[in-house]
Amino acid sequence: MFSVIVKAAFTKYGGLQLPSRTVLRAMSSSGNPTPLYTTLAISHPAESITHVELHRPDKRNSMNKAFSSEMVDCFNAITGDPDCRVVVVSGAGKIFTSGIDLMDLAGDILQPEGEDTARISWNLRRIITKYQETFSVIEKCPKPVVVAVHGACIGAGVDLITACDIRLCTQDAWFQVKEVDIGLAADVGTLQRLPKVFGSRSLVNELALTARKMYSDEAKSSGLVSRVFADKEAMMAGALEMAGEIAGRSPVAVQGTKVNLIYSRDHGVAEGLDYMATWNMSMLQTQDVIKSAQAAMEKKSPKTVAYSKL
Amino acid sequence: MFSVIVKAAFTKYGGLQLPSRTVLRAMSSSGNPTPLYTTLAISHPAESITHVELHRPDKRNSMNKAFSSEMVDCFNAITGDPDCRVVVVSGAGKIFTSGIDLMDLAGDILQPEGEDTARISWNLRRIITKYQETFSVIEKCPKPVVVAVHGACIGAGVDLITACDIRLCTQDAWFQVKEVDIGLAADVGTLQRLPKVFGSRSLVNELALTARKMYSDEAKSSGLVSRVFADKEAMMAGALEMAGEIAGRSPVAVQGTKVNLIYSRDHGVAEGLDYMATWNMSMLQTQDVIKSAQAAMEKKSPKTVAYSKL
Amino acid sequence: MFSVIVKAAFTKYGGLQLPSRTVLRAMSSSGNPTPLYTTLAISHPAESITHVELHRPDKRNSMNKAFSSEMVDCFNAITGDPDCRVVVVSGAGKIFTSGIDLMDLAGDILQPEGEDTARISWNLRRIITKYQETFSVIEKCPKPVVVAVHGACIGAGVDLITACDIRLCTQDAWFQVKEVDIGLAADVGTLQRLPKVFGSRSLVNELALTARKMYSDEAKSSGLVSRVFADKEAMMAGALEMAGEIAGRSPVAVQGTKVNLIYSRDHGVAEGLDYMATWNMSMLQTQDVIKSAQAAMEKKSPKTVAYSKL
Amino acid sequence: MFSVIVKAAFTKYGGLQLPSRTVLRAMSSSGNPTPLYTTLAISHPAESITHVELHRPDKRNSMNKAFSSEMVDCFNAITGDPDCRVVVVSGAGKIFTSGIDLMDLAGDILQPEGEDTARISWNLRRIITKYQETFSVIEKCPKPVVVAVHGACIGAGVDLITACDIRLCTQDAWFQVKEVDIGLAADVGTLQRLPKVFGSRSLVNELALTARKMYSDEAKSSGLVSRVFADKEAMMAGALEMAGEIAGRSPVAVQGTKVNLIYSRDHGVAEGLDYMATWNMSMLQTQDVIKSAQAAMEKKSPKTVAYSKL
Amino acid sequence: MFSVIVKAAFTKYGGLQLPSRTVLRAMSSSGNPTPLYTTLAISHPAESITHVELHRPDKRNSMNKAFSSEMVDCFNAITGDPDCRVVVVSGAGKIFTSGIDLMDLAGDILQPEGEDTARISWNLRRIITKYQETFSVIEKCPKPVVVAVHGACIGAGVDLITACDIRLCTQDAWFQVKEVDIGLAADVGTLQRLPKVFGSRSLVNELALTARKMYSDEAKSSGLVSRVFADKEAMMAGALEMAGEIAGRSPVAVQGTKVNLIYSRDHGVAEGLDYMATWNMSMLQTQDVIKSAQAAMEKKSPKTVAYSKL
Amino acid sequence: MFSVIVKAAFTKYGGLQLPSRTVLRAMSSSGNPTPLYTTLAISHPAESITHVELHRPDKRNSMNKAFSSEMVDCFNAITGDPDCRVVVVSGAGKIFTSGIDLMDLAGDILQPEGEDTARISWNLRRIITKYQETFSVIEKCPKPVVVAVHGACIGAGVDLITACDIRLCTQDAWFQVKEVDIGLAADVGTLQRLPKVFGSRSLVNELALTARKMYSDEAKSSGLVSRVFADKEAMMAGALEMAGEIAGRSPVAVQGTKVNLIYSRDHGVAEGLDYMATWNMSMLQTQDVIKSAQAAMEKKSPKTVAYSKL
Repeated sequence: MFSVIVKAAFTKYGGLQLPSRTVLRAMSSSGNPTPLYTTLAISHPAESITHVELHRPDKRNSMNKAFSSEMVDCFNAITGDPDCRVVVVSGAGKIFTSGIDLMDLAGDILQPEGEDTARISWNLRRIITKYQETFSVIEKCPKPVVVAVHGACIGAGVDLITACDIRLCTQDAWFQVKEVDIGLAADVGTLQRLPKVFGSRSLVNELALTARKMYSDEAKSSGLVSRVFADKEAMMAGALEMAGEIAGRSPVAVQGTKVNLIYSRDHGVAEGLDYMATWNMSMLQTQDVIKSAQAAMEKKSPKTVAYSKL
Repeated sequence: MFSVIVKAAFTKYGGLQLPSRTVLRAMSSSGNPTPLYTTLAISHPAESITHVELHRPDKRNSMNKAFSSEMVDCFNAITGDPDCRVVVVSGAGKIFTSGIDLMDLAGDILQPEGEDTARISWNLRRIITKYQETFSVIEKCPKPVVVAVHGACIGAGVDLITACDIRLCTQDAWFQVKEVDIGLAADVGTLQRLPKVFGSRSLVNELALTARKMYSDEAKSSGLVSRVFADKEAMMAGALEMAGEIAGRSPVAVQGTKVNLIYSRDHGVAEGLDYMATWNMSMLQTQDVIKSAQAAMEKKSPKTVAYSKL
Repeated sequence: MFSVIVKAAFTKYGGLQLPSRTVLRAMSSSGNPTPLYTTLAISHPAESITHVELHRPDKRNSMNKAFSSEMVDCFNAITGDPDCRVVVVSGAGKIFTSGIDLMDLAGDILQPEGEDTARISWNLRRIITKYQETFSVIEKCPKPVVVAVHGACIGAGVDLITACDIRLCTQDAWFQVKEVDIGLAADVGTLQRLPKVFGSRSLVNELALTARKMYSDEAKSSGLVSRVFADKEAMMAGALEMAGEIAGRSPVAVQGTKVNLIYSRDHGVAEGLDYMATWNMSMLQTQDVIKSAQAAMEKKSPKTVAYSKL
Repeated sequence: MFSVIVKAAFTKYGGLQLPSRTVLRAMSSSGNPTPLYTTLAISHPAESITHVELHRPDKRNSMNKAFSSEMVDCFNAITGDPDCRVVVVSGAGKIFTSGIDLMDLAGDILQPEGEDTARISWNLRRIITKYQETFSVIEKCPKPVVVAVHGACIGAGVDLITACDIRLCTQDAWFQVKEVDIGLAADVGTLQRLPKVFGSRSLVNELALTARKMYSDEAKSSGLVSRVFADKEAMMAGALEMAGEIAGRSPVAVQGTKVNLIYSRDHGVAEGLDYMATWNMSMLQTQDVIKSAQAAMEKKSPKTVAYSKL
Repeated sequence: MFSVIVKAAFTKYGGLQLPSRTVLRAMSSSGNPTPLYTTLAISHPAESITHVELHRPDKRNSMNKAFSSEMVDCFNAITGDPDCRVVVVSGAGKIFTSGIDLMDLAGDILQPEGEDTARISWNLRRIITKYQETFSVIEKCPKPVVVAVHGACIGAGVDLITACDIRLCTQDAWFQVKEVDIGLAADVGTLQRLPKVFGSRSLVNELALTARKMYSDEAKSSGLVSRVFADKEAMMAGALEMAGEIAGRSPVAVQGTKVNLIYSRDHGVAEGLDYMATWNMSMLQTQDVIKSAQAAMEKKSPKTVAYSKL
Repeated sequence: MFSVIVKAAFTKYGGLQLPSRTVLRAMSSSGNPTPLYTTLAISHPAESITHVELHRPDKRNSMNKAFSSEMVDCFNAITGDPDCRVVVVSGAGKIFTSGIDLMDLAGDILQPEGEDTARISWNLRRIITKYQETFSVIEKCPKPVVVAVHGACIGAGVDLITACDIRLCTQDAWFQVKEVDIGLAADVGTLQRLPKVFGSRSLVNELALTARKMYSDEAKSSGLVSRVFADKEAMMAGALEMAGEIAGRSPVAVQGTKVNLIYSRDHGVAEGLDYMATWNMSMLQTQDVIKSAQAAMEKKSPKTVAYSKL
């Protein structure tokens, strides 16, 4: 059914309709040997757009050890891929993700090695830091990441989406910060990023402390997502359209915008302005500004301009 | 049907109507000599839940000097009380609070001692810092604090609720940052915490600069509160139910969540992640994770698990 | 037509109706030589209120080089003017502003001088820093700034309004972070301030990365503006009423509130509380507190009190 | 000649030799009930000077539980004592201190309570935080603290002296960061303060990682201490003379200097300047400036001026 | 006598010997109207070197109001002067400076205007901030500033030299943090910068709290100055030689070094590295690197290379 | 006696003279495939000690591309190697290092790729960030790194040693911050770390701005190095002895000390104390404390204790 959705999206938005694109395929990043992922399906639905699909539908896209390292590989490859200007993340099957695959990770988390408490702690810290990288890698990638959530987004799924730049969901989507239910404070990003992702501190605390579900309407009114769509088909079409808007603009401007938006989150305004000025003293010297300004004067859309790769 | 639930809650937990509950009672914290508060009524409506009631109903729960020191004593006691896992704060009588008791505090604020301006300033700084502690103590307590507001919440009342973790109110509630009306910039927490409590900077500024009232619907849509209830009875039932959800979960997870959420507010994401990893290298070694994971696999609620005290 | 609107506002809210006030006039700040602005119209619609109007209506209030330096001069003068307690900013003509005047600034931005890349970069950094000051000067001014937007607010207009304290708009207003369309990351404040101005990170990113328009209803629900008015006439009346509320209160309290709100934005809560205590150790010693407290006890509005200038 | 001065100092101020001075005496702070310390001897060798002596000479002034809480009580009392303007800390008997009294603290550190690792950790964190306060209280006290070290200063003794403002020692003194020898990273202040106390990072690391002794000449050349004296008698005379210099000056200036020096250590320069300006906007309004300026013009020492208490 | 010294220096180091250079002259910065300073003498002892001399020798170079504003004008001019690559600051007459001219500043500091304490404080804060700029302007200037101190450097003189980049002095020089003697905490930079200028915290505190003099040998061993010279003549020669070394190198490299050294002081290492990378992504594209590398391969000094102006 | 120890050390551990030690050898880290380095020689002179030797003696140990990536691989391997508790870094041949191999890196730095300035800048930023990692990896490794410098340490060599924990040198050693001579601000760590490595800001600035050499005596008196040895043989013996002292102590204590010392450098004291408490709440639960305490009571050296691996 999913391929139907995707095909519809391609048809509507002028995507590349080749059926082979919807098969589980690794990204062919320039020059690198083609990696193969077991938990992710990578495709290129349109020019400059990379689609990363959580792809363990029979396991409700739960996140196992392989997923963790594949995410790092995948986003590092995307960072280095000049053909990619924007990323769409979604989930295959009935829901976005059920969170971590507790069985697969149990050894790491429930039976960490070490001869005494300090040594077990030392190992655990290394493991936690490694899993945090699973999602931080999204943020370190300078290309905007649009995430499209349908059905359930549970536990580590919330960690994942808070590290993305733009969040969309379907009407039937719900979100759950689940960690407190399994006895642990969310430690791979939710507690750090969720309060900076939408404005109501009371709601953030409520979700994190009670593990209650939040449905799409509250996700929209609170600002967790910026758009809600009727169903997955509509959402994927919307996500691709939005990705197309981004991909069509100057990559120097777009990626500089992402880098500086993230910098601003973690710094005061004066610091942010100083960094911005230092950043743009070179980036303003791009041909893209000339090309864009020319298009603007000719009343053309920036999407008509051919920007060089970055 | 909802009222039925509410009634049940009150029946089960010794709800507010019982005369014995409205008497001034001190908290029986483990091992300490029983303190007596003149401005707070402490009760334990359900297991692991402490109810702190602002209790000067004939004075509209205005905050005098005694209140300030009693809040510090009370929350320090709660911090050290292993039988308490979550706190509910509300106000007795017709409104939540009318703010500071200007008459009682007038000496401190309007006629501070000191031989010259510098010495008066020195004393004032000490006094302000002491009053700031009245509310900061809520934040330093690792146990989540749910505050339930009915009627009016004025001036220092806003300072109080912004230091709580989850905010609820009734349909008839209103909020007012009042300090600018008495010639002073809010100095015991509102200007520091309000902008981090909900997202609209324009609204925060408007409230603080004009001293206008904000009603419950705007409080909800802005995110100041996460839920609005029809009346106080419904709200108290809702607050206790929410407190029950929190109290039923692992205290290691819950309190670690509060500590890290507050840490994240004041730090960048990378700093927050590092702190989280350092925190959880030991906290993950709790039996609570094992117990919770087992319950999860048996499809049981975490609330059915007996977690040890913390 | 605008003078009609203003007159209506004055009539309704007891403003100073002198027609000469609506003419293009420079501010007569105390003791300084009267400056004349070519892009700004300054008036004093009511006691202690300064109205700064973007005034190049035939150029859609686009921002040229003169505008940039006049803004700095204008707000520096306002900072030093004890007769001004609050500022209202709006735009003359059909829209608030179309953003930068690309033609006028083209030389600076598109053809910066310098013998090699490093030297061009050095010059660009100086230029960017100077333009950043155009809007930062609003924030450094301790007097609250209410901005009233009608029609379009594009590009650098968004930079401007995010540096103001309270944002209002008309039903027909729309906002557009435009920089990505001309090939550059917004570098004079939007990326730094927008994420701290309203709560939905997803929406901030969407606006900055896609350059899509945001209309007044979304501006209100997201918290970018705190009030929407039916039309410009109503908005100006509302802005002046709100300005009157602020101007009528103690300037020591009001300006101390602005200074500390901005400090809080860029610091953690503990730091903010410490700064507040240090600030108020002297500011609490104002006669305004005594006067205000007396008025409060006599059930009078603070607006009836005659506060000294600051 | 110096010894003459020293003797005079002792004669004048009731120097250390008098038997009555070596008895355990509690501080007679104004109005408070007289506390009695078992590990500290408090005296007032000269006007406005408080001498805090580590006083368990038969136990080499090792630090037990009582010491920890007495330090907090003692420095809180000093903070609130307007008769004290400067503090001198030294050790009774053969050496300054041998560090923690491992036997006395063993229960807390080696056998912490708790049902599982997380709960033990929770308790340990509380305990560590409490012990950190033993020395942080010195820093929070706004009155300058001069510490005079003779013989050995081991382990927690280094934590103590790094929290003092001015460090002096005798020729025979040596210092040892000892924690790494008992299997723990120094956790009550040394690792945090030592690198900010003298300039050579390589030396700091060497001391902390190898636990080697540092003798007085290296302590002086590295900047750990600012003066070395021939023996304890000379050092105490020098310490009292220095304390006298400080005590004779405006307490508004002196204590403001300490507060801002500590603030500067933990903030950037721009932040420090802003805080300083906010601090001094009131503190400059002291009569002490007038009095001091007058003395300066009359070529008199500030020590001849009678400053009011603070 | 000074002119003799200067002349000798010029003769020795190939300076521009024109006698007119030692006359009190304003800087002829490119294109600006020639300003005339009453407290500063500006000269150009060698190519690309600007010499700023405190020049009120009959007043012991004490700092009055004029000095404060002239320093700001002077260093702003230097910042914008492409012909200047390095600055030398010294004092005319018998000593470097006796600090502030208390008589001239008395009105501002001792009798600030304002109707109540808050308003006086408000004015004082503005005044302090303005005086802080007197020295901060040195730091904001990207060109390295070498300061050469002879005789006494008292009070505000220490504020001045801590804002310079390299400190030299004569054998007979002494330094005194004087503020505590006139009843005020040093508020224009010493408390903020001195602890970051040399390593011994104990010595910094001692100087600031006791106002004792520090002589040249201690200034050298503590690291306050990096070189001591036999007399002023030797020092000026040394200062000019050092300035020549700096002026002969790539201004892109030199000024980038200053900017990043100051940035590093106020940030953690990771932040500093990120800023450095962002800075150099453009600055590395300078022709100066090519030219310098070529010179290096030809075993020529970088001083033989003709670098373009910046 | 000392020379005996040294000789013993060499005999026991296959000291530096043995020809077999100068052969290129890869580190046999546990379980990993044995990597082979072309620019580094790895050996294990004593239990738990890893010796990393810069090993391009015929190229004066200049740093080429291979060196950069090998350093990252090498220190990552060391981080994960439980058999290593401390690292010694030194240089083979006549000098420590002549800095970067300009010829090898010329392509990256002098001819970076990219279609316009912005794209070249983008690439350069990536390259700089990568080279920064060459030295940051030393700091991220929790095991203490002792660096022993003989002969010259030029340019990037200074970047390297400032990232190490303890610095030693020979009498004939000299140091030179060279970057300003090749037209670029030092961008891989010197400007960020040098000011935090020793105390005299004036000297740091002088070195960075003039590129002058600093000899061993000034390196010692300034605090850059903590010890100077007569020649390389004595230094290597001293380095190994010091490494032995560290290796013989609890790795939980030692590595926790390094981690927290680095954390403290970049944070205020209150932050550092909080992190320390959170760190040690688990690390104090090590058997090493019990073992060490027991040894201490039996008057045995901690080096006699058998600590488990970490």
